[in-house]
Amino acid sequence: MDNARIKSLIQQLAQLNYQDMYLNDFLLTWEKSDQEVQATFLVADILRGLRQRNISTRLFDSGLGISLFRDQSTRTRFSYASACNQLGLTMQDLDEGKSQVAHGETVRETANMVSFMADVIGIRDDMYIGKGNAYMREVSEAVQQGYLEGVLEQRPTLVNLQCDIDHPTQSMADMLHLINHFGGVENLKGKKLAMTWAYSPSYGKPLSVPQGVIGLMTRFGMEVSLAHPEGYEVMPEVEAIATKNAAAGGGKFSKTNSMEEAFAGADIVYPKSWAPFSAMESRTQLYGDGDFDGIDALEKELLGQNAQHKNWQCTESLMSTTHEGEALYMHCLPADITGVSCKEGEVEASVFDRYRKPMYMEASYKPYIIAAMIMLAKAKYPADTLESMLTADIARIR
Amino acid sequence: MDNARIKSLIQQLAQLNYQDMYLNDFLLTWEKSDQEVQATFLVADILRGLRQRNISTRLFDSGLGISLFRDQSTRTRFSYASACNQLGLTMQDLDEGKSQVAHGETVRETANMVSFMADVIGIRDDMYIGKGNAYMREVSEAVQQGYLEGVLEQRPTLVNLQCDIDHPTQSMADMLHLINHFGGVENLKGKKLAMTWAYSPSYGKPLSVPQGVIGLMTRFGMEVSLAHPEGYEVMPEVEAIATKNAAAGGGKFSKTNSMEEAFAGADIVYPKSWAPFSAMESRTQLYGDGDFDGIDALEKELLGQNAQHKNWQCTESLMSTTHEGEALYMHCLPADITGVSCKEGEVEASVFDRYRKPMYMEASYKPYIIAAMIMLAKAKYPADTLESMLTADIARIR
Amino acid sequence: MDNARIKSLIQQLAQLNYQDMYLNDFLLTWEKSDQEVQATFLVADILRGLRQRNISTRLFDSGLGISLFRDQSTRTRFSYASACNQLGLTMQDLDEGKSQVAHGETVRETANMVSFMADVIGIRDDMYIGKGNAYMREVSEAVQQGYLEGVLEQRPTLVNLQCDIDHPTQSMADMLHLINHFGGVENLKGKKLAMTWAYSPSYGKPLSVPQGVIGLMTRFGMEVSLAHPEGYEVMPEVEAIATKNAAAGGGKFSKTNSMEEAFAGADIVYPKSWAPFSAMESRTQLYGDGDFDGIDALEKELLGQNAQHKNWQCTESLMSTTHEGEALYMHCLPADITGVSCKEGEVEASVFDRYRKPMYMEASYKPYIIAAMIMLAKAKYPADTLESMLTADIARIR
Repeated sequence: MDNARIKSLIQQLAQLNYQDMYLNDFLLTWEKSDQEVQATFLVADILRGLRQRNISTRLFDSGLGISLFRDQSTRTRFSYASACNQLGLTMQDLDEGKSQVAHGETVRETANMVSFMADVIGIRDDMYIGKGNAYMREVSEAVQQGYLEGVLEQRPTLVNLQCDIDHPTQSMADMLHLINHFGGVENLKGKKLAMTWAYSPSYGKPLSVPQGVIGLMTRFGMEVSLAHPEGYEVMPEVEAIATKNAAAGGGKFSKTNSMEEAFAGADIVYPKSWAPFSAMESRTQLYGDGDFDGIDALEKELLGQNAQHKNWQCTESLMSTTHEGEALYMHCLPADITGVSCKEGEVEASVFDRYRKPMYMEASYKPYIIAAMIMLAKAKYPADTLESMLTADIARIR
Repeated sequence: MDNARIKSLIQQLAQLNYQDMYLNDFLLTWEKSDQEVQATFLVADILRGLRQRNISTRLFDSGLGISLFRDQSTRTRFSYASACNQLGLTMQDLDEGKSQVAHGETVRETANMVSFMADVIGIRDDMYIGKGNAYMREVSEAVQQGYLEGVLEQRPTLVNLQCDIDHPTQSMADMLHLINHFGGVENLKGKKLAMTWAYSPSYGKPLSVPQGVIGLMTRFGMEVSLAHPEGYEVMPEVEAIATKNAAAGGGKFSKTNSMEEAFAGADIVYPKSWAPFSAMESRTQLYGDGDFDGIDALEKELLGQNAQHKNWQCTESLMSTTHEGEALYMHCLPADITGVSCKEGEVEASVFDRYRKPMYMEASYKPYIIAAMIMLAKAKYPADTLESMLTADIARIR
Repeated sequence: MDNARIKSLIQQLAQLNYQDMYLNDFLLTWEKSDQEVQATFLVADILRGLRQRNISTRLFDSGLGISLFRDQSTRTRFSYASACNQLGLTMQDLDEGKSQVAHGETVRETANMVSFMADVIGIRDDMYIGKGNAYMREVSEAVQQGYLEGVLEQRPTLVNLQCDIDHPTQSMADMLHLINHFGGVENLKGKKLAMTWAYSPSYGKPLSVPQGVIGLMTRFGMEVSLAHPEGYEVMPEVEAIATKNAAAGGGKFSKTNSMEEAFAGADIVYPKSWAPFSAMESRTQLYGDGDFDGIDALEKELLGQNAQHKNWQCTESLMSTTHEGEALYMHCLPADITGVSCKEGEVEASVFDRYRKPMYMEASYKPYIIAAMIMLAKAKYPADTLESMLTADIARIR
């Protein structure tokens, strides 16, 4: 990206209204205005451009980015670590026991105790329906209070690295990939996107990816179709948001129980496994009750249920039914690839292979999206700061 | 904190004699002169003031702060990580097996092998009576020798993050909290502080907090009372230090076996559980012998012994007997709160709740205290360096 | 080291041809030209000199150094963390399961997913014959492709932190120690170095140290003798390299089955245990087959085989047969010391003790060697950059 292009993006950014993001959290994309979402994309692209030009983007001279992962993660952890690093923050892990679901006072105390030098807290808590996002809000309130009381010198910003409801860093990275892949958001109007369930031999994948996708992609005039077998419904609240978004943005949101229907003529396909919402609810209940026999029984039941839908696979044959047979295939990775990572899975190996490059590119936006979320929350005048970074031209590698 | 106030604190600092702290360790508060202790408080307050004003306090352009925790810790680990971060150091964990108590040659070798870029080594080793502080001194001698022999380009400073004898980062943070809470150290003269044992359903809490408190708080003209049931004595050497300090500083140090007596008229109360010194000695012996049956038996015995003193609880009723019924309640956290974190514990929930804000503030001093200890050991002219930080006014967040 | 000496080293560096190291990996010493090896030593010495003078050597304003250790490590991990830190990188661990040997697609995907901000990837994978180095090359190709495709903004450099074939950071540190200990590489011509097997009560130590030593030390005109009991052969390919090196550099490479013969008149001795190559091959096969009974049986067999060679110990008596009875004793640490860390081991305690200082010095070169490898791969004009660091004279500790 050349200097002129970066300058132009900064100028676009300067026109937008995103002042409410300052000192605020990023928890759900649908809590952010269109201009705020657009500002996030712009800052991500600008940060990427600056890095390509070996220009330092250290917003922070020092500071910590706390990471709190309640589920194992390599990709998101590295994306978060990368985002922190490019802004000058050091990532510091808070390892709470995975199974331990903290409540009330404990959350308040821990949140303050780890935040003395914390500028950001990134949380991944996607395993329990009704808990993950709620937990983030508890942490947010706790640090807000700590800041107001003078306990904390700065108010750490929360970034949702995946919860039970949304996965904003994923869906925003996916969307920025679409924008750049199709040469601009204006080119996405009327494009058909199929967010479809796909078979996986594993159990209990979170719903936050499909929910995040339908909650965000419906804002840009696309025709978003959500496809899954009966029984694999997502949260109705999120479907309502998708419907509302589509209406407001001139797009469409539809549902179907046929993968074929969703793929037919699609410009973009996103086939991915997830667990049924109601099963995730039961699971949360069983964990709460400590009923481990019940959990085992549920797992068997769910795997059996999945196995009835092995035909929900992204095959070459299905791909040939998409727009000109060349729909853009997307995945949040890692995928269950038939004959590679499992016997039967979400996608045929040849399809996956053909789309490796765009998929890696899709993933590559996540660190910049996270960094943009942080920057918009912590820099008082982001456009000015980015402008001064460009002008100062401090080499990242000397 | 405004500029003028920061300048005034730097001027006060410049008058003090703390040159022996340079390239030295911070292991026990009573090894430090009054002026050295005062300098530590001043540097901590200055660093806090600079952070409030968004002024960078990076003493180091690069460097490592090694952390060696032989006991689990979230609070102290984050305080140490925060202290390192605000000075520009990166924390690097050295995970030795918890149970492994290294000796002699191994200590010397490991200490050198991890210190090639180490400016600080923070150690927490509080589980074994007679071992923790001794281990720190072995490490200190090893790196001193490595430095003199040219193996190490810099001599890492040791910071005691809790040992069997003292918990200087805690007691110093507690004391700075008192100083600021009461509006200056001069206002503490004659104040009554009750450091009392309290009941906990858990076993084997270290003695370093009560020992650290009586070893430090007796230096400022306060009347410090140590209260515990018979059998819960702390180390006699530390009591001797408390007595000596009180005599030198115009305060008092007394002991009682009555919580009521200690609370009566107290200005400050610090009710907290700890294990009997003699039991900790037996435990160390049993671990040394690998006698795990003996350890189990001891644990049962100690829990039984604790349970005889459930009435040692900080209740509303006891609080009402303190000075104007409004003594400042202190705790190093986490506390065992009756009906919250346990059935019966150290403190009634309503008392704890009422003092949450000052307790969080108490905890908030620890990162600054640790940073001050590091700075006084690593900066040759700390007052000048702080002055130049204030003047340079480099933004921590751009 | 004074300014003039540092300048002189930078001038020497400027004369050498090392441009192929730029954006390249460091996997095997024998893939590097003599001038490239010499450049690495020079940069290491210059970085050490700058640090001694408290001059910042931050090549990077931000960036990550990924560490991927497939075997436990304290020393190498801290050396790598130190190297990263002194150049301004933050180390980020990638914890894959130890036993998991990733293949093909997984390697490619993971390598890209962790490299969005990665400037370096340090890998230790020494447990499986035929796998470790091969794995590194897979990662290297994956990130090269990711870089060319625009997924990665920078091409991370790989540093071999120990594989099945070579341990270049160790052998290079060892060699730099020899150069400085003997007052210059020219003084090493004709010196006798004995790389000998020694008895250890433990099992399956990697061959990369002896292989690394004979593969590197034969390049400097030394007479290198490899001694081991029958059955403890190293990889024939590496022996062939040693032979070729010796021929090219005017030195000698010989083999013997007698420790006495190797020690007689030696100027330098490096007695160290390793596993037989063929046993390591069987082990790799057994792991591949998941034959854990076979692995247990092999372990017993190897320990029994080792025990037949307890007389392969570096004793005072053997040391007295070396040149003037004063050969330089070397070890990569930790050593199995008779009567200290084990009943019978590689070396007598009095020998080990006498050489502690030079051994620690030997170890102290590793962080600088790693940093030099990184710098030569990431700085476009290393001599100019070092010169400008010297001139800028930015204090590491203010």
